[in-house]
Amino acid sequence: MEKQKRFILPENEIPTQWYNIVADMKNKPLPMLNPQTKQPIKLEELTGLFSRACSEQELNQTDAWFEIPEQVRDLYKSYRSTPLVRAYGLEKALDTPAHIYFKNESVSPVGSHKLNSALAQAYYCKQEGVTNITTETGAGQWGAALSYAAKAFGLELAVFMVKVSYNQKPYRRSIMQTFGAQVIASPSMSTKAGRQIITESPNYQGSLGTAISEAVELAMQTPNCKYVLGSVLNHVTLHQTVIGLEAEKQMAMAGEYPDMVIACFGGGSNFGGLSFPFMRHNLVDGKKTVFLAAEPASCPKLTRGIFQYDFGDEAGYTPLLPMFTLGHNFAPAHIHAGGLRYHGAGSIVSQLIKDGMMKGVDIPQLESFQAASLFAQTEGIIPAPESAHAIAATIREAKKCKEEGVKKTILFNLSGHGLIDMTAYDQYLAGDLTNYELPDEIIKENVSKLDKIV
Amino acid sequence: MEKQKRFILPENEIPTQWYNIVADMKNKPLPMLNPQTKQPIKLEELTGLFSRACSEQELNQTDAWFEIPEQVRDLYKSYRSTPLVRAYGLEKALDTPAHIYFKNESVSPVGSHKLNSALAQAYYCKQEGVTNITTETGAGQWGAALSYAAKAFGLELAVFMVKVSYNQKPYRRSIMQTFGAQVIASPSMSTKAGRQIITESPNYQGSLGTAISEAVELAMQTPNCKYVLGSVLNHVTLHQTVIGLEAEKQMAMAGEYPDMVIACFGGGSNFGGLSFPFMRHNLVDGKKTVFLAAEPASCPKLTRGIFQYDFGDEAGYTPLLPMFTLGHNFAPAHIHAGGLRYHGAGSIVSQLIKDGMMKGVDIPQLESFQAASLFAQTEGIIPAPESAHAIAATIREAKKCKEEGVKKTILFNLSGHGLIDMTAYDQYLAGDLTNYELPDEIIKENVSKLDKIV
Repeated sequence: MEKQKRFILPENEIPTQWYNIVADMKNKPLPMLNPQTKQPIKLEELTGLFSRACSEQELNQTDAWFEIPEQVRDLYKSYRSTPLVRAYGLEKALDTPAHIYFKNESVSPVGSHKLNSALAQAYYCKQEGVTNITTETGAGQWGAALSYAAKAFGLELAVFMVKVSYNQKPYRRSIMQTFGAQVIASPSMSTKAGRQIITESPNYQGSLGTAISEAVELAMQTPNCKYVLGSVLNHVTLHQTVIGLEAEKQMAMAGEYPDMVIACFGGGSNFGGLSFPFMRHNLVDGKKTVFLAAEPASCPKLTRGIFQYDFGDEAGYTPLLPMFTLGHNFAPAHIHAGGLRYHGAGSIVSQLIKDGMMKGVDIPQLESFQAASLFAQTEGIIPAPESAHAIAATIREAKKCKEEGVKKTILFNLSGHGLIDMTAYDQYLAGDLTNYELPDEIIKENVSKLDKIV
Repeated sequence: MEKQKRFILPENEIPTQWYNIVADMKNKPLPMLNPQTKQPIKLEELTGLFSRACSEQELNQTDAWFEIPEQVRDLYKSYRSTPLVRAYGLEKALDTPAHIYFKNESVSPVGSHKLNSALAQAYYCKQEGVTNITTETGAGQWGAALSYAAKAFGLELAVFMVKVSYNQKPYRRSIMQTFGAQVIASPSMSTKAGRQIITESPNYQGSLGTAISEAVELAMQTPNCKYVLGSVLNHVTLHQTVIGLEAEKQMAMAGEYPDMVIACFGGGSNFGGLSFPFMRHNLVDGKKTVFLAAEPASCPKLTRGIFQYDFGDEAGYTPLLPMFTLGHNFAPAHIHAGGLRYHGAGSIVSQLIKDGMMKGVDIPQLESFQAASLFAQTEGIIPAPESAHAIAATIREAKKCKEEGVKKTILFNLSGHGLIDMTAYDQYLAGDLTNYELPDEIIKENVSKLDKIV
């Protein structure tokens, strides 16, 4: 009974600021560009689409700390701090000398870390007099989080949900509707971008890139409406740093500091949210922590993508972003980790990879579900298929520790639970899941279509 | 920011004992009877079916406190203490002077309070050399919990799942299978009890009573196998008192003591688990807290059932229990709160009702979903359809407080989340749900078939 299992902060220890890693980076990320002029995006160009507060956060390269607004902190208190948990069960099953910790964001009321930014973005929109917001969602974790956040601040929300998830994950759609949101399968007939894709490919099952195009288009055409995004951009990751800032204090409660920090990677917000507060100590205090971003082998933008200016969406409505990308016209394989099916990495993470501060690791789908099952049976929590990638990468490292006889402290992010993703587990149990490795030719062909700016 | 939202105990404050209310009751519950001899059940008769430790706990009327085994406490630490939460959002929406608190058992890794007893029962079986266990499950909350507990202690588990839930809630079935359990739709062809019912009524969608019969039969016919139950019996409720014992300390952290304690009622384990530690102070310290058990209007055993010796299962395999019952042959309406569709109340609760220590309140299905939606939109958590009954009863009381201008402190149990029950919410949102009030004649007819022992 001496071994402490979970570490939870008292409410007055919940962070009151978010951390902006850009302020501490020696090489700043390249700027977003206006696709027409190829000039750096100005604040006024962003505020047409996003709230002013988020636009300012997006472009800020000098302030390391941003106050978390009091109303957001009040709502954080309904589920934060999330527990830091020592995975004794998993360690025992692996017979590893490694100490494995995970930050359990799955205990958020909507089941994932996504609420951290949803509450912040909804708050800023409300403050600025916005009445309607639009967004996209892949697997539905972001859409569920924003649906509750919109209700909490009295905003009307339209969610474009990637069609394959809309059909495969009806529970997530129902969750959004229970919170009062309008949910539309994407591609839809509601927007020009959607209509064009449906006309060209009537059976297209959608992608995050397409859903973003539709949400952006609707926001631009609706009075008093802003667009809200769940990952990729700097301000979203900024809001997620509450995860890592809590984890830092909690690791100290456990008397440890991580040698490795691991998170799954879709657009980068749960990865950056956990990692950046620890990476800060690499940047400013000379720590040597290793950072791994676990992506699906079927969507390997970090390890096999090209660093290039590219659009954030399918139709080319967004600014050009400097990113490791598979091409914005990339149609990802229909793996179950819907949240990781995105063609590019955010500009901060892309710069950090160039600078050798972190690296990507590719996880085949079957390995991710094997890891998820072991984790479920040893720790009792069924992880989201996305989070399973972080678990798989952690298990690889813990096995290396055993082989090499080295004790390392590994921290990973359990970004969400998989209770709404059980059809994926059904298929895994039935032996119906397969691996898919993206052929080089497809990457080359996609990327060859991009304007060569970098 | 001064208002504290959640109250969580440090690990060393998690209770180390369970509370047995029978020891403090002036009028003890009537004994279970052997259905053949009509004599009180002896320990040796129970141990054929249940583990010895649980059998002893079941019959103990003198010891108020039982040590929680260290291995169970270690596993409790992965999710306990669960938070006590002040429902500021709900209070505001109701504009009530009442202070509303809820104990959030939904953060358990399997999504409900059921794990508290599952871990204990699996532990005792393992200690006693048992290798296989059987159980039944209605909505699937108990089956999911026991599946993880069985895996944690290395036991093989067969779960008989009520057929209507097996078909309506495939995700819960998948959760059990992911943890490694075997799941069988009940009634099944695997047992004599099941075969008989299928032969008589080929389309019968099952009931908890039938599933219990099948699980008991399989346990009795399998070597080294015990039967494990998720509610109704004294030892199950005993294990659940960790909820109320934590809540007592947490209410003290909040500087309050409840005027009312409310929980939903199926077999009584989440109700007793939260209530009994507070009711102890009514019994021994003269407190005047009011206790409400919220049941579905379609299965109103507490308010409209008959106090009578009855079987716990459909086929009549169990001992006779002194209970408020609708008759063990009662086929409940197919409401969505599957965990509340049980014909009888446990013997402790039945005695407490007779003694006026608590009372039942009937909630129509539509009112429960209205309450659930309001709670989801104000507190961010989608409740299990079962827990929604407690929320509905709480809202009634909070509205009374407003009408009468009285400030009361109300504590209810959020026994589980509803993320796996979204088809029910879909039907509610579509306007397809109805109320069903049980006709008096059906109750009279069912109960008329029982042996008149009391």
